[in-house]
Amino acid sequence: MEIKETNIYETDELVGQYCDFQYGDEYFGVTNFAKACAHKAVAYAKETNYSKALDLGCATGYASFELAKTFDYVDGIDYSQAFVNVGRELQRSRHISYTQNGEGEIKTRKEVSIDDFNFGNVSSKVHFSQGDACALAPEFTGYDLIMATNLIDRLYQPHLFLKSIHERLNANGIFVLTSPYTWKEEYTDKEFWVGGYADENGQEITTLNALMDMLGEHFELVAIEDVPFVIRETPRKFQYTISQMSVWKKE
Amino acid sequence: MEIKETNIYETDELVGQYCDFQYGDEYFGVTNFAKACAHKAVAYAKETNYSKALDLGCATGYASFELAKTFDYVDGIDYSQAFVNVGRELQRSRHISYTQNGEGEIKTRKEVSIDDFNFGNVSSKVHFSQGDACALAPEFTGYDLIMATNLIDRLYQPHLFLKSIHERLNANGIFVLTSPYTWKEEYTDKEFWVGGYADENGQEITTLNALMDMLGEHFELVAIEDVPFVIRETPRKFQYTISQMSVWKKE
Repeated sequence: MEIKETNIYETDELVGQYCDFQYGDEYFGVTNFAKACAHKAVAYAKETNYSKALDLGCATGYASFELAKTFDYVDGIDYSQAFVNVGRELQRSRHISYTQNGEGEIKTRKEVSIDDFNFGNVSSKVHFSQGDACALAPEFTGYDLIMATNLIDRLYQPHLFLKSIHERLNANGIFVLTSPYTWKEEYTDKEFWVGGYADENGQEITTLNALMDMLGEHFELVAIEDVPFVIRETPRKFQYTISQMSVWKKE
Repeated sequence: MEIKETNIYETDELVGQYCDFQYGDEYFGVTNFAKACAHKAVAYAKETNYSKALDLGCATGYASFELAKTFDYVDGIDYSQAFVNVGRELQRSRHISYTQNGEGEIKTRKEVSIDDFNFGNVSSKVHFSQGDACALAPEFTGYDLIMATNLIDRLYQPHLFLKSIHERLNANGIFVLTSPYTWKEEYTDKEFWVGGYADENGQEITTLNALMDMLGEHFELVAIEDVPFVIRETPRKFQYTISQMSVWKKE
């Protein structure tokens, strides 16, 4: 019972933290990460016909809505039902509210409207589902763009996702990956880390090099850039992370 | 056995992280926090005779050495023996080495010399001890300056420290406190949080207001300012925190 309460609390806290990350204020002059990634992805996909996009690891849905300003149809998928419910709530009631941490256990209630982001006219183009990137249902296919932001180092077997993702893209489709490559055994058994280790010859395998190996057969690497993001934990404590965006064009 | 290995690993990782925090590079243009705090504390203590300073929660010792450029005698005390050993090692062998996280489990060995910081001529003025801020030995007294950076929200009973610290200061001595007020039950039982909760009337008690209550009897609050710090966790992931410095003059 105590464990369950702790988990519920942490889930609520995490949902609030991610709502604030996606729909809240910007800090240290760093652009909203979901917005930045969606805009960059749209630009990288400019040679597609902008029909169908997949936002995999969509969290509370901001980038899915942002992509729907350009794409005709957007799937937003996250492993967390609680996160997906936020996006659906924004579609259904046109606003969401969440709690933001103050000092200690002090909380502030925040409310945002779908109109704050000009998502009102496009929200019906977004389709949210709970799903597992390592075992995605076959219906999720035929995309011009697949975007997976800060996902791969939280998957239990990221190769299951990376080795098959090309099958879900149209010809010349774009795959946009971002990650800070924060490999941790609590999320991914070490044998499944894509990079961040030394091989049997003592050679250090970076994630980017390993991605080139894993994706190279089906993709051309067309761009790499750093995209920073800031997550507010308390009024005074933030995570400041530099994600690496790699952009892959299906060959 | 497995738990013990994990603990040793985490300790080593934390020691490396703090060595890098105190002796490593600066990130995002944010000044080395230990240096910034020592310099500010020296300026705030300019009306004392700069005889004796206490750096409580000294971690790996940087600020203790920095204070010794001005003070005749500096005590550096930390709850962690592993942290204190770093400062002692720098005194003894004039250099330290530590591991810095790369991607995943890749590590880099870093080495710094006492001469990199011009601590060589003053290091013998610093006296490191392992100690508990909530139960400090009586010999630690007679200070012109007591500095406690990012300490109070990691104490098990911070009032034991705060309610008696004036006894260890000389008349007109300066007490410099910094904290991001990140109260967590894993460090401090909620009943002992200094602030960050609502009282029985629903009134929100901020830590700063509670500090004014707790310290007001013996101190005048002479200054408040924000001091940022950045802790590097991986090449791409950082903690970016805005500590609040409050400066108290013993009446």
